[in-house]
This record gives sequence, structure tokens and C-alpha cells, in this order.
Amino acid sequence: MTSRFLDAIQWDEKGLVPVIAQDERGAVVMFAYMNRQSLEQTVATGEAIYWSRSRQRLWHKGEESGHVQRVRTLSLDCDGDVLLMQVEQVGGIACHTGRHSCFYRTLKGDEWVVTAPVLKDPEEIYGG
Amino acid sequence: MTSRFLDAIQWDEKGLVPVIAQDERGAVVMFAYMNRQSLEQTVATGEAIYWSRSRQRLWHKGEESGHVQRVRTLSLDCDGDVLLMQVEQVGGIACHTGRHSCFYRTLKGDEWVVTAPVLKDPEEIYGG
Repeated sequence: MTSRFLDAIQWDEKGLVPVIAQDERGAVVMFAYMNRQSLEQTVATGEAIYWSRSRQRLWHKGEESGHVQRVRTLSLDCDGDVLLMQVEQVGGIACHTGRHSCFYRTLKGDEWVVTAPVLKDPEEIYGG
Repeated sequence: MTSRFLDAIQWDEKGLVPVIAQDERGAVVMFAYMNRQSLEQTVATGEAIYWSRSRQRLWHKGEESGHVQRVRTLSLDCDGDVLLMQVEQVGGIACHTGRHSCFYRTLKGDEWVVTAPVLKDPEEIYGG
């Protein structure tokens, strides 16, 4: 596979691009980063493979939880430096807390209030 | 107004937080950054005020175009370092190219193909 679509991206100074993942219901479920290799593998495999900045390695989303993201479409913004990825979120759980979306806290007055339920206990997802 | 909700955010090394803007139809229309002051003003005024990294100044979205974003809800992700903002996109145009969303190019094979129309000529929006 050639890599013209990779060259079109304005990678940041660390070689990364921010990626917004939106599920089939339109919910923004996650935000993470990809480097060139992870985006190439995402496109090749059809499943979201991010670059984990904390672990400094490729991160196949769902590798432990089974909650993989099947890629439907990938879009690039006007500046060429942000990706929007439409996904099918397997298991309906994107967040490591066991919630549908990582954006489960909403501003009420001066507080971030939890407004979405835990669908599955993280202990059950990851361990035990 | 106290600033507990500002202190809860994990600001990056430049004092910024990434912000995803989603409109009333569920479309992700924009991605930008806020600093502490811009988020405070966004909450105080109810309209999106970003931090422009290129111009290094506060950027009241729509200040030139009239395409302001009225904030409906603000959500914080699990790590506390990304914001999702539900907005009413005035004029239905978020992108400086005159399109509904900044994410108007979709990957087809090895190419990013323009898949959304220009709704209003940028010359008409910004100048002349």
C-alpha cells in the first residue's frame, strides 16, 4: 500500500495526530492519538490502533477488554491535523471505567458531575 | 465565580486543553484548544472562546463570520484532559472554508476526498 494519505497529514512535533472516535449512535466516545504506524495499521486492519503516549507503544484498542473499535470512516479536518473516526464500538463500552463514553462528567455550576452509568465493572472487564 | 471546575482539568504543558465541538445534530464540527482564561470566558458568556495557537490570543469563534457557537453542555473525559462541548452552531457553518464541519475530507483508498459542500463562499463570509 502506498502512503499518500499518511503524507497528507500534518503530524505534530511528536509525530502524532489527535483522533476523535464517534460511535454508530453519534456519541463521541473517546479521544486519543495515532502516529504514522498506528494509523497505517488502523487502516490496514479496520480496527482502531492508537499510540499510547503513557506506555509509548502501539495500543490496539480492546486488546484486553475485547471492546475493539471497527472503523467505518476516517475524516481529516481542514488543517489536516485532526482525525475524526466513525467506529462501531464493540460491546458498547469505550471507557476503561466501564462506561459507554469517556466523556461521562458534565459541568453543573462549578462541578463536573458524573452523568453516565457504569455498564460493566472494570474488574470484570480487565481482571480477576 | 469560583474556579474549582478549572482546577479539575489536567492542562497540558502549554496550559491548554483540547476541545471537541459537536453540534445539535450530533456532527463533530470542530476541534480546537482552550486555555484557562478562554474556558472561564466560555462558561461565563455561554459562547465558545478558544485559544488560538497560531495567533496566540483569545479567539471568540464567529467574531468575524458571525458563526458563533452557543454552548449547551460541557463534558470532561475520564483522564480530565479533553473537553467535549455540545453547541448550537449559529449559521450551520463551523469551518472557515464555508462548510458545515471542518471534517469534510474522507479517506477513500489512498486519498482524502472532499465529501461535503461549501455552503457559503468564504469571501462572502469574511471579506469584500
